[in-house]
Amino acid sequence: MKNLKIGLLGLGTVGSGVYRILTANADKISVNAGKKIEISRILVGDLNKKRSLDIPAELLTDNVRDILDDPGIDIVVELLGGIHPAFEYMLEALNKKKHVVTANKAVIANYGSELAEAAAANMVALKYEASVAGGIPIINALSSALSGNEFFEIAGIVNGTTNYILTQMTEFGLNYEDVLKEAQDKGFAEADPTSDVEGEDVAYKLAILINTAFGLRIPPMNIPREGITKISKDDIEYASQFGYKIKLLAMAKRNGNELECGVQPALIPVAHPLASVSNEFNALFVKGDAVDDLMFYGKGAGSLPTGSAVVGDIIDIARKSDFPECCAFQPAEPPSDLRFTGDGLGMYYINFLVADVPGVLGKVSTAFGDHGISIESVMQRSKSKRAGDDVPVIYILHELHRKQLDQALAEICTYDFIKEVRSILRVEPLT
Amino acid sequence: MKNLKIGLLGLGTVGSGVYRILTANADKISVNAGKKIEISRILVGDLNKKRSLDIPAELLTDNVRDILDDPGIDIVVELLGGIHPAFEYMLEALNKKKHVVTANKAVIANYGSELAEAAAANMVALKYEASVAGGIPIINALSSALSGNEFFEIAGIVNGTTNYILTQMTEFGLNYEDVLKEAQDKGFAEADPTSDVEGEDVAYKLAILINTAFGLRIPPMNIPREGITKISKDDIEYASQFGYKIKLLAMAKRNGNELECGVQPALIPVAHPLASVSNEFNALFVKGDAVDDLMFYGKGAGSLPTGSAVVGDIIDIARKSDFPECCAFQPAEPPSDLRFTGDGLGMYYINFLVADVPGVLGKVSTAFGDHGISIESVMQRSKSKRAGDDVPVIYILHELHRKQLDQALAEICTYDFIKEVRSILRVEPLT
Repeated sequence: MKNLKIGLLGLGTVGSGVYRILTANADKISVNAGKKIEISRILVGDLNKKRSLDIPAELLTDNVRDILDDPGIDIVVELLGGIHPAFEYMLEALNKKKHVVTANKAVIANYGSELAEAAAANMVALKYEASVAGGIPIINALSSALSGNEFFEIAGIVNGTTNYILTQMTEFGLNYEDVLKEAQDKGFAEADPTSDVEGEDVAYKLAILINTAFGLRIPPMNIPREGITKISKDDIEYASQFGYKIKLLAMAKRNGNELECGVQPALIPVAHPLASVSNEFNALFVKGDAVDDLMFYGKGAGSLPTGSAVVGDIIDIARKSDFPECCAFQPAEPPSDLRFTGDGLGMYYINFLVADVPGVLGKVSTAFGDHGISIESVMQRSKSKRAGDDVPVIYILHELHRKQLDQALAEICTYDFIKEVRSILRVEPLT
Repeated sequence: MKNLKIGLLGLGTVGSGVYRILTANADKISVNAGKKIEISRILVGDLNKKRSLDIPAELLTDNVRDILDDPGIDIVVELLGGIHPAFEYMLEALNKKKHVVTANKAVIANYGSELAEAAAANMVALKYEASVAGGIPIINALSSALSGNEFFEIAGIVNGTTNYILTQMTEFGLNYEDVLKEAQDKGFAEADPTSDVEGEDVAYKLAILINTAFGLRIPPMNIPREGITKISKDDIEYASQFGYKIKLLAMAKRNGNELECGVQPALIPVAHPLASVSNEFNALFVKGDAVDDLMFYGKGAGSLPTGSAVVGDIIDIARKSDFPECCAFQPAEPPSDLRFTGDGLGMYYINFLVADVPGVLGKVSTAFGDHGISIESVMQRSKSKRAGDDVPVIYILHELHRKQLDQALAEICTYDFIKEVRSILRVEPLT
């Protein structure tokens, strides 16, 4: 039986994990793959860098041609990150009839269709399990075990950095800025955390999930998004008193070819399984017409968990490597209609700061009523305040359209006693 | 492209679900499978039975030979349930070089190795995703996307009937007998619920998981088990006051070829994701050396969820049907050492009924100390009792061996004030 030869592009966090797993579990992997998996070459930036892994020097190269031009290499595993030149390397590999495995969410979200077309034309595989939610095998599940289902809903917590920040804010009553700094000091958050905290990373992953689950194509930049930078520890505490946790949710709903999607912080019921997803963990909730509700939970990042997903893809290719592969990623059509989940029908949490004068609750509640909005719960907090201080008033509103809410708020903000609308957050009952 | 022809054995709950999914999602399934899936024959017990499904009469037969002897049938889908003749039909199908898909946990748990050997010898597939936890694609995940991992731990809630009973007892403070009766009236529990409530059903599923995840062979009857019939609403309430929920857990731990396993009710921390698995939902927690902690959550039974798993297996076979398949179920060796999880090191919950006399807590706590047992928490409940009534005293004990506990309890039970040891339950911190 012929060995399967791999060219690894990149030996950073994920690349090291892949090397470790293929080495440590080589025997089990050979049995499962039906053949021996051999790393024949590894592209690195600096040949002389000190590494914690003990890797034979002859495997390393700083010239990508040693991999892309080697006809003996069956699979190119791209773990460089960034869009260029990772995309060009993958495209060239596919056109040279090499299978491609990648952890690169930016490339798959933006250029997945082009790569999928190249894979199909060359009858080779393009696999990207590691690009979404690290070790959680969601892409594999959607495209094999669950592929008899039509899917209609996705809701997920798919960014470990923001989930860590929100969890620490919740558990220890801390401010966003303090937790972010601590996370940066510990290496859990990037020096420039923008892509994580503003929801860009989540939008990449959601675009990939929308393609894989719904067969719809959406450029990640078109996914409306809102980050977590404006979430206060007060919002988290008030939400908790109403029985909710605040999570950064990726959401998508499909109705035929119509798509509603978005990335935004939302209040979810404390008893829902997504609410117990803490710190660096990720989770994905999907609803299929046959399987109904399904959730996957696990580590969304890290050397070995993400490496596990890459190795799973390699084994899958090994098992099928004598025949053409169909790619889970679809060179699909764009949706016929696209809306932001945040604009559709939904429940809302509103945090007002108001002057402590009589009649506030009556007037605000009446204004909501005049706009056809019904109130689920309301809470005024004047405990332990000093005389004359402004006080928070928190509303949870029943289902309404965002436009209705904006009209009501425009009227309410004309009242003198309204000092500030501090937060408007979506409530997702997830039932 | 040749159609793939299916012979369905059985048209009950799961069989109807499979028929509905293959019919309703036929287009998507053809694309995913790479060919058309055609149901060519269905074995039923009574040809004239009124059915809610509109099925062409010529598809139905009451003679199994019409399926097993038909060389045109590629896949036999066994959904009869029970061990005989389901096992014999599957064995014959494999030996006639037909692929087999089954939802039959009793057959796979007891005769999986024989069937896997027959599948390997005939170079056909044996697939059994639907036999464990209904729609949750755990078998597929363990044997493909996660197959680069070595697995060490499994913990799962894999019986919907008992989880429904425990959830209702917890949420509404009801007794076991009352909830069981209500569940039977609603059709959620069998008229004879023994296999569910005594843990036999869970033991079947655990034996299959141990094989698939660990590659170890264990007859399900050798798995120690304890059911939920002795759990009282008081235990549930006390556990809740300590921050735990009581769940019927399937547990297995592996150390090389040594296996520790068991089925028993256990207290799990309320913040653990398994604690929010309610009613008929199932969940599986696995720990791999690369992927670390992973949880899958979904519907563990029902026509369409279980049908989804069967259809996933059929599609998987279709994709690979021109080449020999390796079976996830392994004709594996028995473990070199087998222990009951309930005998190993663990934390315990003890519910004593004691006479309300001075010195009880001191004497019991001293006795535990004398046996080297340390106490995590203790609670005495004498609120709202009448003078002279016995009172419950609840202990949560730090890690100890069951033998140590039994020795301490033997001594404690010699004290006159001990009226009864009402419950001894395992506490699983699941960290």
